[in-house]
Amino acid sequence: MAITRDQKKEIAEATKATFKTRRPTVEALEKILFEPLEVLDHGFVRVVDYMGDDAAIVQAARVSYGKGTKKVSEDAGLIKYLMRHRHTTPFEMCEIKLHVKLPIFVARQWIRHRTANVNEYSARYSILDNEFYLPEYENLAAQSKTNRQGRGNVLGKGDAKKVLSLLKKDSETAYKDYAWMLNDNGEGEPKDKKRDMLARELARMNLSLNFYTQWYWKIDLQNLFHFLSLRADPHAQYEIRVYADEMLKIVKAWVPIAYSAFIEYQMYGGHFSKTALSVLKRMIAGETITQEISGLSKREWDEFQKTLSQQS
Amino acid sequence: MAITRDQKKEIAEATKATFKTRRPTVEALEKILFEPLEVLDHGFVRVVDYMGDDAAIVQAARVSYGKGTKKVSEDAGLIKYLMRHRHTTPFEMCEIKLHVKLPIFVARQWIRHRTANVNEYSARYSILDNEFYLPEYENLAAQSKTNRQGRGNVLGKGDAKKVLSLLKKDSETAYKDYAWMLNDNGEGEPKDKKRDMLARELARMNLSLNFYTQWYWKIDLQNLFHFLSLRADPHAQYEIRVYADEMLKIVKAWVPIAYSAFIEYQMYGGHFSKTALSVLKRMIAGETITQEISGLSKREWDEFQKTLSQQS
Amino acid sequence: MAITRDQKKEIAEATKATFKTRRPTVEALEKILFEPLEVLDHGFVRVVDYMGDDAAIVQAARVSYGKGTKKVSEDAGLIKYLMRHRHTTPFEMCEIKLHVKLPIFVARQWIRHRTANVNEYSARYSILDNEFYLPEYENLAAQSKTNRQGRGNVLGKGDAKKVLSLLKKDSETAYKDYAWMLNDNGEGEPKDKKRDMLARELARMNLSLNFYTQWYWKIDLQNLFHFLSLRADPHAQYEIRVYADEMLKIVKAWVPIAYSAFIEYQMYGGHFSKTALSVLKRMIAGETITQEISGLSKREWDEFQKTLSQQS
Amino acid sequence: MAITRDQKKEIAEATKATFKTRRPTVEALEKILFEPLEVLDHGFVRVVDYMGDDAAIVQAARVSYGKGTKKVSEDAGLIKYLMRHRHTTPFEMCEIKLHVKLPIFVARQWIRHRTANVNEYSARYSILDNEFYLPEYENLAAQSKTNRQGRGNVLGKGDAKKVLSLLKKDSETAYKDYAWMLNDNGEGEPKDKKRDMLARELARMNLSLNFYTQWYWKIDLQNLFHFLSLRADPHAQYEIRVYADEMLKIVKAWVPIAYSAFIEYQMYGGHFSKTALSVLKRMIAGETITQEISGLSKREWDEFQKTLSQQS
Repeated sequence: MAITRDQKKEIAEATKATFKTRRPTVEALEKILFEPLEVLDHGFVRVVDYMGDDAAIVQAARVSYGKGTKKVSEDAGLIKYLMRHRHTTPFEMCEIKLHVKLPIFVARQWIRHRTANVNEYSARYSILDNEFYLPEYENLAAQSKTNRQGRGNVLGKGDAKKVLSLLKKDSETAYKDYAWMLNDNGEGEPKDKKRDMLARELARMNLSLNFYTQWYWKIDLQNLFHFLSLRADPHAQYEIRVYADEMLKIVKAWVPIAYSAFIEYQMYGGHFSKTALSVLKRMIAGETITQEISGLSKREWDEFQKTLSQQS
Repeated sequence: MAITRDQKKEIAEATKATFKTRRPTVEALEKILFEPLEVLDHGFVRVVDYMGDDAAIVQAARVSYGKGTKKVSEDAGLIKYLMRHRHTTPFEMCEIKLHVKLPIFVARQWIRHRTANVNEYSARYSILDNEFYLPEYENLAAQSKTNRQGRGNVLGKGDAKKVLSLLKKDSETAYKDYAWMLNDNGEGEPKDKKRDMLARELARMNLSLNFYTQWYWKIDLQNLFHFLSLRADPHAQYEIRVYADEMLKIVKAWVPIAYSAFIEYQMYGGHFSKTALSVLKRMIAGETITQEISGLSKREWDEFQKTLSQQS
Repeated sequence: MAITRDQKKEIAEATKATFKTRRPTVEALEKILFEPLEVLDHGFVRVVDYMGDDAAIVQAARVSYGKGTKKVSEDAGLIKYLMRHRHTTPFEMCEIKLHVKLPIFVARQWIRHRTANVNEYSARYSILDNEFYLPEYENLAAQSKTNRQGRGNVLGKGDAKKVLSLLKKDSETAYKDYAWMLNDNGEGEPKDKKRDMLARELARMNLSLNFYTQWYWKIDLQNLFHFLSLRADPHAQYEIRVYADEMLKIVKAWVPIAYSAFIEYQMYGGHFSKTALSVLKRMIAGETITQEISGLSKREWDEFQKTLSQQS
Repeated sequence: MAITRDQKKEIAEATKATFKTRRPTVEALEKILFEPLEVLDHGFVRVVDYMGDDAAIVQAARVSYGKGTKKVSEDAGLIKYLMRHRHTTPFEMCEIKLHVKLPIFVARQWIRHRTANVNEYSARYSILDNEFYLPEYENLAAQSKTNRQGRGNVLGKGDAKKVLSLLKKDSETAYKDYAWMLNDNGEGEPKDKKRDMLARELARMNLSLNFYTQWYWKIDLQNLFHFLSLRADPHAQYEIRVYADEMLKIVKAWVPIAYSAFIEYQMYGGHFSKTALSVLKRMIAGETITQEISGLSKREWDEFQKTLSQQS
């Protein structure tokens, strides 16, 4: 239950009103505006506002007086050119504002992307809800044996059950004790008048990192692409990747041309080192190359193979 | 002549279309959308797009599901509170995109504000117009005698005339020679086929700093306030201040509540040092304080007096 | 126990070596280089590296070829002038790198200052230590009755005891279960070979926000001043303020002249709104002003009085 | 003549003093500290200060208490791993401060890199020297016929001579008139007492974009690598590339391991789009691919070939 009935009503209210504007407007995005797209067990992403569209990228690149767009094909060509040649500034001319509900440990990774604006729900000022993340069975993975910061196989059923029950028990206890320390009747008054209410800014420290927080997050398209290239990547932690995946859909609805350029050149492109490039040339010339004679380390060789065999 | 007939047509074209949106929309700003507000002899500022309104600040501060606003008076109270206590993040949730035409020496000051997005007209790629800034007589000031980086009195008529004629002559020569070096017929072909066209990226170096450039500039409200507090200040150079003044009007139309909070607390507020605070206390207690016994240097004392007597 | 014996040895090792350099060097800071300054029950701040000194500010302001400094008094005058007039760029020319150990809930506030570089200890990659923050009795404050995000009186002894025992119990359980889920023998191998090890990136979510994390944090002097003006402020949460206080001492040792300018103009200066300025003028003229006739709201009036009566 | 005798003396003075420090120190960089490395006809780059070395990258990545380094080979392996996997934060832990003298049109490109600190010589406050950039014959290139923002062949001798003489004449006139408008005797007093001195902030607009300015510029290693990957690239304008080339040498002396990782993975690596990757696979499998059947546009195909045949 990510959203309460009251919140749904508030959202519905906001959705009703429409206005006339002369600003660039994207119908496909208007359709999902304000709507919470569910992620994980209690989380969501919802678009709260946006600025610009594909044409706005073209318009900025041309520093034009009017719309700045010509034929659709020419515009798409320009956008692809800009993406390919790392002319990133025109993509910064589009902006999106999201409302996100996410576990705190995900929020801690997310915030490392500094070039964005954030307004987080304050647990100094308000009381957090009793909502915490519990993974699905199929996401309860064992520590990877080859990658120190990755996941390996899914846990066996018995272990998984035990892990889940521990996570659940500890979270529930944490919240119960948090609530007791706050001794708050929901309106800032003590429930039990004989007892003090611990300062909210202190009580919160008893909550664990799987509790949900929420924030307004605003970012330009260029920096969003950077975020997505790292967080929608298979190496990203599953729990942030599912948010990134949802945002990819949003971007596709919003700026479809820039989105496909991103997919083509960044998301599913591949990067090779100087040495790997020379290996490529020799392979194309018909030479059979093994790791041993490639000049690449074992690890680099594996990554080289992976990049080559990459499927979208 | 800031805008050619063709550009006017392009702008008019863009102005015609209206769309339906569910996004926060500000009628007063829609009215001037795309319209060039003239500044200096050939410059302008025009709003190309915007995101958010006063309510969006409140909504972000409350991390709300719906509009997040309550009574107008409560919203205004919250916005004033945020401004007063330097809770700056909710103001970052509004964004504006401007198209600005400005002399290069102004652009060089402007760009020092790093937290903004910029797309400048490229003189590597295109040819600059023959437009340069010439000050009005009343803005041709002598070097200040007290402030190493300020202006003093207006020049005498004779000197002013000579200065203007030098500026004009040198700018005209610079452009004539720039055009000659480019040897471009306006369509990327040589005018004089027997001569080479110098690379645009080289030819441009012959133009002087009063030539006009233009850019798309996008910034959030918080950083715009910072820009305005420095550049609409009497210490700012006149030629950038007139742009800031125009932007103040834009902000007033866009987010009137945040604008008055900015005026009240930042623009016409005053800051005192620790020592100046103690002087204030003694003055209020009825003591007569002179610079000599104030603990302030001569210069600080003058600034102290100025802050106290400040009128908006 | 913030630091283990092994870590102390590592630090001692680093401390031994000295090198010859032509870079600006600050003796007072060299003395405490690498040394952990203890904060809270398990935290610390230690200076790992620094760039620049007071003279470097002057040198940058003058864009000089040599040291750029003149007489000490002139240099101090220039630094004060820069601080007073918000010429912030020369202060950005000094940089400091700190190693900080701090509770996660403090880290979450800290990271909101975006203009800094951070390398955090990764709980995806490594296992966190069994160290969590428990407040001292005198810091266990009740929720403030007047300030929704502040603290009021210290809790009564009985309540305090109960709160502490809850925090302790929950933290200990959280860690015990975290360790069980990891099933790690300390060398990346399972302790209990019949059981899987849960991925570290998942197990960490069971820890509460009072657990300690650590990071390398690098920031320029200008942005550090901004951080300190907000976080060494009485309105800041106690648990981050104690870090800020320690950093103030570091800054004092590092750049004593810039430090006093900061104290004089920013830290213990006072800001007044336009209306408050006019109230000040009337008070100095001998008028008796009450809140009712001041034009200030009740809340603003209280803040006005507080600013006036502020003591360092 | 980039440096006057007085400036040389100042630099020599600063060079003499040495201090004892416990900070990471790089001998190879100490050797060229303060020394102006000449670029173009009057420009230079010189290292004024630095923080960190190769080991500091490793130390930050490990968030270590001591030096954090192990065997040289392990450290190099880690640095290469970080570079390859875009773990950029440890590279931000090194910082360098440069004093650069450069033509204004180069400064305008340079400043677009926002994540750096800058202190520019102020032409509002001081008087610029009579130094302007004139290209060498071999750098006076014609506009490229295939690339709208690039250079083609070198100009014919006759044209080149004419261009140079125009540039020289206009620059000299600009400075002569600038000096006349300033009417300054070098000490802030009028030369001709019967005439006003035009405000410096106005007079400067008469100078052309090839005049030299200078600044202190401070940047972290990660952002410097980004700068260099764009500005040491063959597509960058020659006049900024020569500065980038000089900085590459500085970086090599400073952090040799990070430098080679940068060269291997970024500078001389190659990026392929999704479609280009699939072309590569078919070529390696022995298929003969032409542009027509590649799925790449003509332009992309050319870029594809170029990336493949790239030599360092």
